[in-house]
Amino acid sequence: MANTLIGVPRVNLEREFFDVRRQTELLCAPLSPEDLMVQSCSDASPAKWHLAHTTWFFETFLLSEFLPGYQPFHPDFQWLFNSYYNAVSEQPVKALRGSFSRPSLEEILAYRLSVDNAMDRLLRNYLPAEAEKRVKLGLNHEQQHQELLLYDIKHAFWANPLHPAYYDAPPSHAPAAPPPAKWIANPGGLIEVGHTGKGFCFDNEQPRHKAYLEPFELASRLVTCGEYLDFMRDGGYERAELWLSDGWDAVKAKGWRAPLYWFESEGRWVVFTLTGPAELSALMATPVCHVSYYEADAFARWAGKRLPTEVEWETAAERLPAQGNLLESKALHPTVAGASGGLEQMFGDAWEWTASAYLAYPGYKALPGALGEYNGKFMSNKMVLRGGSAVTPASHIRSTYRNFFTPESRWQFSGVRLAKRQE
Amino acid sequence: MANTLIGVPRVNLEREFFDVRRQTELLCAPLSPEDLMVQSCSDASPAKWHLAHTTWFFETFLLSEFLPGYQPFHPDFQWLFNSYYNAVSEQPVKALRGSFSRPSLEEILAYRLSVDNAMDRLLRNYLPAEAEKRVKLGLNHEQQHQELLLYDIKHAFWANPLHPAYYDAPPSHAPAAPPPAKWIANPGGLIEVGHTGKGFCFDNEQPRHKAYLEPFELASRLVTCGEYLDFMRDGGYERAELWLSDGWDAVKAKGWRAPLYWFESEGRWVVFTLTGPAELSALMATPVCHVSYYEADAFARWAGKRLPTEVEWETAAERLPAQGNLLESKALHPTVAGASGGLEQMFGDAWEWTASAYLAYPGYKALPGALGEYNGKFMSNKMVLRGGSAVTPASHIRSTYRNFFTPESRWQFSGVRLAKRQE
Amino acid sequence: MANTLIGVPRVNLEREFFDVRRQTELLCAPLSPEDLMVQSCSDASPAKWHLAHTTWFFETFLLSEFLPGYQPFHPDFQWLFNSYYNAVSEQPVKALRGSFSRPSLEEILAYRLSVDNAMDRLLRNYLPAEAEKRVKLGLNHEQQHQELLLYDIKHAFWANPLHPAYYDAPPSHAPAAPPPAKWIANPGGLIEVGHTGKGFCFDNEQPRHKAYLEPFELASRLVTCGEYLDFMRDGGYERAELWLSDGWDAVKAKGWRAPLYWFESEGRWVVFTLTGPAELSALMATPVCHVSYYEADAFARWAGKRLPTEVEWETAAERLPAQGNLLESKALHPTVAGASGGLEQMFGDAWEWTASAYLAYPGYKALPGALGEYNGKFMSNKMVLRGGSAVTPASHIRSTYRNFFTPESRWQFSGVRLAKRQE
Amino acid sequence: MANTLIGVPRVNLEREFFDVRRQTELLCAPLSPEDLMVQSCSDASPAKWHLAHTTWFFETFLLSEFLPGYQPFHPDFQWLFNSYYNAVSEQPVKALRGSFSRPSLEEILAYRLSVDNAMDRLLRNYLPAEAEKRVKLGLNHEQQHQELLLYDIKHAFWANPLHPAYYDAPPSHAPAAPPPAKWIANPGGLIEVGHTGKGFCFDNEQPRHKAYLEPFELASRLVTCGEYLDFMRDGGYERAELWLSDGWDAVKAKGWRAPLYWFESEGRWVVFTLTGPAELSALMATPVCHVSYYEADAFARWAGKRLPTEVEWETAAERLPAQGNLLESKALHPTVAGASGGLEQMFGDAWEWTASAYLAYPGYKALPGALGEYNGKFMSNKMVLRGGSAVTPASHIRSTYRNFFTPESRWQFSGVRLAKRQE
Repeated sequence: MANTLIGVPRVNLEREFFDVRRQTELLCAPLSPEDLMVQSCSDASPAKWHLAHTTWFFETFLLSEFLPGYQPFHPDFQWLFNSYYNAVSEQPVKALRGSFSRPSLEEILAYRLSVDNAMDRLLRNYLPAEAEKRVKLGLNHEQQHQELLLYDIKHAFWANPLHPAYYDAPPSHAPAAPPPAKWIANPGGLIEVGHTGKGFCFDNEQPRHKAYLEPFELASRLVTCGEYLDFMRDGGYERAELWLSDGWDAVKAKGWRAPLYWFESEGRWVVFTLTGPAELSALMATPVCHVSYYEADAFARWAGKRLPTEVEWETAAERLPAQGNLLESKALHPTVAGASGGLEQMFGDAWEWTASAYLAYPGYKALPGALGEYNGKFMSNKMVLRGGSAVTPASHIRSTYRNFFTPESRWQFSGVRLAKRQE
Repeated sequence: MANTLIGVPRVNLEREFFDVRRQTELLCAPLSPEDLMVQSCSDASPAKWHLAHTTWFFETFLLSEFLPGYQPFHPDFQWLFNSYYNAVSEQPVKALRGSFSRPSLEEILAYRLSVDNAMDRLLRNYLPAEAEKRVKLGLNHEQQHQELLLYDIKHAFWANPLHPAYYDAPPSHAPAAPPPAKWIANPGGLIEVGHTGKGFCFDNEQPRHKAYLEPFELASRLVTCGEYLDFMRDGGYERAELWLSDGWDAVKAKGWRAPLYWFESEGRWVVFTLTGPAELSALMATPVCHVSYYEADAFARWAGKRLPTEVEWETAAERLPAQGNLLESKALHPTVAGASGGLEQMFGDAWEWTASAYLAYPGYKALPGALGEYNGKFMSNKMVLRGGSAVTPASHIRSTYRNFFTPESRWQFSGVRLAKRQE
Repeated sequence: MANTLIGVPRVNLEREFFDVRRQTELLCAPLSPEDLMVQSCSDASPAKWHLAHTTWFFETFLLSEFLPGYQPFHPDFQWLFNSYYNAVSEQPVKALRGSFSRPSLEEILAYRLSVDNAMDRLLRNYLPAEAEKRVKLGLNHEQQHQELLLYDIKHAFWANPLHPAYYDAPPSHAPAAPPPAKWIANPGGLIEVGHTGKGFCFDNEQPRHKAYLEPFELASRLVTCGEYLDFMRDGGYERAELWLSDGWDAVKAKGWRAPLYWFESEGRWVVFTLTGPAELSALMATPVCHVSYYEADAFARWAGKRLPTEVEWETAAERLPAQGNLLESKALHPTVAGASGGLEQMFGDAWEWTASAYLAYPGYKALPGALGEYNGKFMSNKMVLRGGSAVTPASHIRSTYRNFFTPESRWQFSGVRLAKRQE
Repeated sequence: MANTLIGVPRVNLEREFFDVRRQTELLCAPLSPEDLMVQSCSDASPAKWHLAHTTWFFETFLLSEFLPGYQPFHPDFQWLFNSYYNAVSEQPVKALRGSFSRPSLEEILAYRLSVDNAMDRLLRNYLPAEAEKRVKLGLNHEQQHQELLLYDIKHAFWANPLHPAYYDAPPSHAPAAPPPAKWIANPGGLIEVGHTGKGFCFDNEQPRHKAYLEPFELASRLVTCGEYLDFMRDGGYERAELWLSDGWDAVKAKGWRAPLYWFESEGRWVVFTLTGPAELSALMATPVCHVSYYEADAFARWAGKRLPTEVEWETAAERLPAQGNLLESKALHPTVAGASGGLEQMFGDAWEWTASAYLAYPGYKALPGALGEYNGKFMSNKMVLRGGSAVTPASHIRSTYRNFFTPESRWQFSGVRLAKRQE
């Protein structure tokens, strides 16, 4: 940790700051002010709100505290763009975010510009270590919202009866068949997981701690659409014995019979993607995506396997480079696994549901004050996902990263890797 | 009814057509594309949708049938902008209208222009009488949507945490006190109500038919905010005995304690209007507005009076000119009654809840086909309102006009006129 | 109205009192204490509650006011068994009535006995006219609950997976075909409706008042199951154009595809009745029953006819004897119409949905105080039904009687009579 | 495991069988047939249903498979009294269990008798080992339902406006103050948890497996009502920062401001118990009970501590005798801790919420077939509780026992033990 008395010049941090901020705006480039308004499900927020809320973070936690004489851009924005930090202010009801025609996009872009300029002043000077930590937190926060923004706009365009594409990509020429899945063994034993070292991490990745693992094996790649279709054709969505009780309730209540974004058209399955609808037949070798934990778990039970725990996953991943089909590859969708024969697709493509509930690590301490609401307060009724997806920024992911969603969520890019006991 | 074989030149109808169409667009002038997206309650639709749906009406019921060789502007628009005409097509779920970022406002304005141009071609020629009737129906339909658009944008700006004004009006200088309410007697007897003659009317205003009325009296003006405040201060919202059973359930379930758009700020009542928030103290002499049928009925019971029936209202109104504080006066809010000593405010200011359920007149026949869905299918669970409001276009209202809403609705401009038996 | 100063000896009233009270208990004879506990839908109450609530009525409105020195049977019962009289006390939540295992049936029968004994003392003496009126009201109130009790127990046994019969009746030998329906003309004109004379009536049947009717015709008998099956087979439940908008919403939301209590078993329609399940094929000539207003209205539209208004119905009925298949005939289900050639089934068999909303008659005044809550406060969102059903006590029905339910209700015995304009 | 070829004489098992079966009936002795009908919340089932369902278990899994020539008591009972075993049959909707007036209590007691007699025949003979295992499972299943029956009847009597007592107990003379809570240290390390040895356990307690624990400390006794009241008085239910996000949502949605069964009466807190309402002031030294996981977690955060994990709890408990204030002590409510200075109240009094989600142990295998639905399918959205309660049968509990409920559940007897890192 940096010395808390004497700040350090922030050349790299400044560059990072503007890179991340510009990236958010770039993601909005294909969208009209009207698109930026849409909130098509309760999980989602309008893109315009993401633009404002990420800015609010820097204003609230950096400028108001560390830039002498800083005047807030607009007195109402402090509570308008608070998401859930109860310690900071009341927040508007989430369901009304879609009614935010005012402030206009123009005003929100002005807000971004104004905050960026003030941050520029702040970053040019020596920063207290606490401020530096917060800038890094703010940038990682903004990267999370970049990913959410893509989840949300995908859902918005799915909800739109016209099913428009977010981005016009050249048709990909995926191989007809994926490489065969192999089992990659791991001896387990008394190992350690959790973040250590100098890089950024969220509070929920710490402290690093010991855990004991039985020997286990992980599948070398993610489950493909073709394999998932086999599950469907084998009555996967009609056989109660394959499902957790809550999962079976969800199947019946929501009428699930395929992953989110799959629909039937003239007798064929079509998959809606950020680049528009695509024939499932062209995606058979690519990882299945947008499944809930319940579906991942039912698939694993059907396959006679199980999901990995997050500790198993991290142990297997920690020596691998955090590279893969991430946001920067611009595919915006999972692609076919490589044929290295080792663990493939551990980073990128699709977040991997684990069999672990999202809970505190032994000795976990939340950040003090409002920032402590960032992670800790969500530690109930969620399952951990690992590894990032095709819309995760590359600089955002690492082997210790713990993502989490409720088990019925499907609008995030989530897929399945199988595990089993060592035989 | 015009001769159905030989059409007539349509000079006036053409002028009327463009007047009404331009009026809709004028009402949108103060709004941004983002404002036009908002759908803040389930009763409401986004303004953009109103722009498109009214255009769809002319395309579907006029151009597709009467303009030879007409090609629809866009194949998807037929079902996208259908509201509830089951006979024409499936419709998108109403709650998703707010997700319509695409088609863009630009495309919708292009749609309007294209349909207007085609209508221009149609209207320049001899029109079959059926087509002429439908043009008039379409224009009245569009005027209804003009009024709805203002209800909806008022609610959208109310739902917005910033409470913006739709229109900047000079502060009105309302008198401190209204003229005293008098009782205007009517002998009743065997009378006739319902539309007759050549002008346009909706199918639900016909046939003209006999009805018998006991002698009755109507209040000379609408109930004021000041009078309504007396009701509130006398425990109006806490006394079950004043309310219909369904009304009392609504009071408790929705937490009603004042009309819609009234809120307390620093101990004073403020009223949100289309020209922004106004102190209630400045509006005491103006008619109370945005009350439900239940509130109107409870107020009447508290006052020892009752609401008029729609037959009483029409009999009293039918010889009065259909003039008043309507859309063209640009007040966009009810204003203080005149002091003529006779019936005031029968037209305009606020729709008057009647004690009559919205049901078919004896011998009622719905229009044939899809247009028959316009009125008849709503004849359950609604109460009739009469006389128009401060946002009703002047050419749209008449004494036989029957408006209708569910008894708990409040987002329309609805007020109260008292009635009693002749003593 | 009787002289309010000098009461009259009550021999007949006393006999009437005990007749009605015993009748309620007789209706419970086939039921176990457990059966008397069931509350299977939100419209319904447990039979045990009916036993107590009807007793509460006499205790609250008669004994507490008119029997000097009367001590309530139990201090909690005043609010426990209040249904909806806000002026008397708070009431327990209706949905919790089914949790009333205590007080036990034994205690409630003791409550009935105690109140009956006290009423006996009251009735042996001269009664003030107001008390006499209330006794009659209480007895009519109890008769209404007798009918409700049968609705509720029918639904309770329907909800029970075993579908038990309430009453073992010998199989009826219904004719295979009903008499043909004829049209019975009525000249209409300026007529009068509403109760007059000395007999008991509810406040909502008054005052008698003038109304004007166009000439009309009523079908000579109720619509049969066979005719209703024709409607179903002609796509009645799939054709939006036949339905009111609210009705179509109900069809979709509730999945209606037949009247309540019809179910398919091994490819055949079966009808659950108070005497157990019966083959529809054996009931084809009997009136269809347990349809909502929406279904009655849709059937009429499909048939090219309409429902009668309540004024038409009363005018046609007022000279007919109030006789028919009522509770005392013990069929407990509608039976086949007679073949008189005139109006049949006007009383009994099934309540007839009218096209009239339940609203106040001109000059209507609710009873003063808590008893004024009996009828008046339900005057919104209800439709009027006329004529009684197979489970209405004979002494309870008359031509001016106005029953009312929400248009989607089906658990009451409600059927359809068609009407049309005179041709 | 017993030899599966040759069964063993079952004298003890037979005695155990009848002991457990009689115990269930004894618990119903204070209840009337009407009480046995009540289902007052969606978590609960009527006591009558518990009586039948536990019997169904023996009929389905023992008699039908192992008693040659066994004829089911009633053909409908197989699906009527199935709770959630999808592999066996469809089940009736849980919410309708309260409508089961038929079969009557009498019939259900006859069902019990008949099944017991048949079980007697079965148990007198040599049993295959699989059958023996199922009998033990069935008895443990029945003991679980004994506990649930008491939860449910407590809620039923709480829902009843009269708040009757289930059982008349002499007033307990609890000390005014509990013994001080001490911290009991445990070194942790690489330990083992999970069931081993010959006694009965559920599948979810296996396999025994290694886990690594940091050194930790457990509070010597449960949190008391007095301590919980301090939390409440310190704004516990008003301070968002103390709560998990889902917990805070629950507080607001359900209006929680105290544990379940606490209510205010004339300015004092009263606690409803199975022996009737008791003044909180007399219970201050007894453990707080009927709190949700969210409340337990918020209390721990407020106290600056945390909840133990299930592995910590089991490690600390495994050498202690499984004794305490359990069902057989007949207190039916938590009582004051002893003053041994060591771990107190580890068994009995109140189930202890742990910080562990209910998930599969490494290598977990569900039982084959329908019995595999017993535990495994509930492994999502639940938290583990340990140690039993004042209404758990003594022979039912052990240190490896894993109970589980959703984090918002409160109708079970659940309390709080604090933990912390070793300092």
